[in-house]
Amino acid sequence: MKDQVIFRRAGMGDLPVLVGMLADDELGRKRENFTDPLPDSYTAAFEEIEQDGNNELVVAERDGRICGMIQLTFTPCLTYQGGWRCTVEGVRTASSERGKGLGTQMFEWAIARAKERGCHVIQLTTDNQRPDARRFYEKLGFKASHVGMKLHF
Amino acid sequence: MKDQVIFRRAGMGDLPVLVGMLADDELGRKRENFTDPLPDSYTAAFEEIEQDGNNELVVAERDGRICGMIQLTFTPCLTYQGGWRCTVEGVRTASSERGKGLGTQMFEWAIARAKERGCHVIQLTTDNQRPDARRFYEKLGFKASHVGMKLHF
Repeated sequence: MKDQVIFRRAGMGDLPVLVGMLADDELGRKRENFTDPLPDSYTAAFEEIEQDGNNELVVAERDGRICGMIQLTFTPCLTYQGGWRCTVEGVRTASSERGKGLGTQMFEWAIARAKERGCHVIQLTTDNQRPDARRFYEKLGFKASHVGMKLHF
Repeated sequence: MKDQVIFRRAGMGDLPVLVGMLADDELGRKRENFTDPLPDSYTAAFEEIEQDGNNELVVAERDGRICGMIQLTFTPCLTYQGGWRCTVEGVRTASSERGKGLGTQMFEWAIARAKERGCHVIQLTTDNQRPDARRFYEKLGFKASHVGMKLHF
């Protein structure tokens, strides 16, 4: 159906579009290296994600074009009586899609997928430099209950 | 050597001690179910962690007794040019150990392990209800750059 968003696992052929999306972002611009051909490090990471049964890199597609991406990591933990966690990383939507409700659709999909995988929680960290993102997640029911701490090497 | 802390992968036989440690905590008390025998869900989670090459559940031992625990999850991601992340969950020290520098030793070990695994960042979220923990992580070099958002089902 036209305008309908479908979700599917990312394939290696999607990689240039995905890296382009990561680079087309205020913070991503400084971190990524969107060249043709792509640096091998992206291909290697893609292969590692694909081989890991507890990682899923998923794209949102509208009219045959990728318009969003999200990575889910499923982690078995002893806490919460041996509960599984779903951690979300690398969420991006195409700049042309903003304000069209795609982010909400992506998270509705991700929440359903986390439940399907038996997780008791879905979690993410959002940069203090993205106040709009925090409000977006709060509308979806996320609680800002934690401080997200990072140590870069 | 006496009083020296060693780090090793947790074994199934450690599970009662580990769950006891998780339950001996202000927040853990409400979440865990420390019974004998342990609920099967802990055993199942332990097996899942052990089988996952990107998860390591590690114990700290002093004089042959477990005094701390930490779980590391290594995640391949496209962001940061296909960089690996190390996410820390379920950090606990035995109540008898507090104030003896064990937490610092555990994190020095974890940071070294994350580097050894090729990660560019080590990350965790700490509950807003644990202000001392935040200061502890800041002393280790972590930056409170993110908001940690959780949605429990």
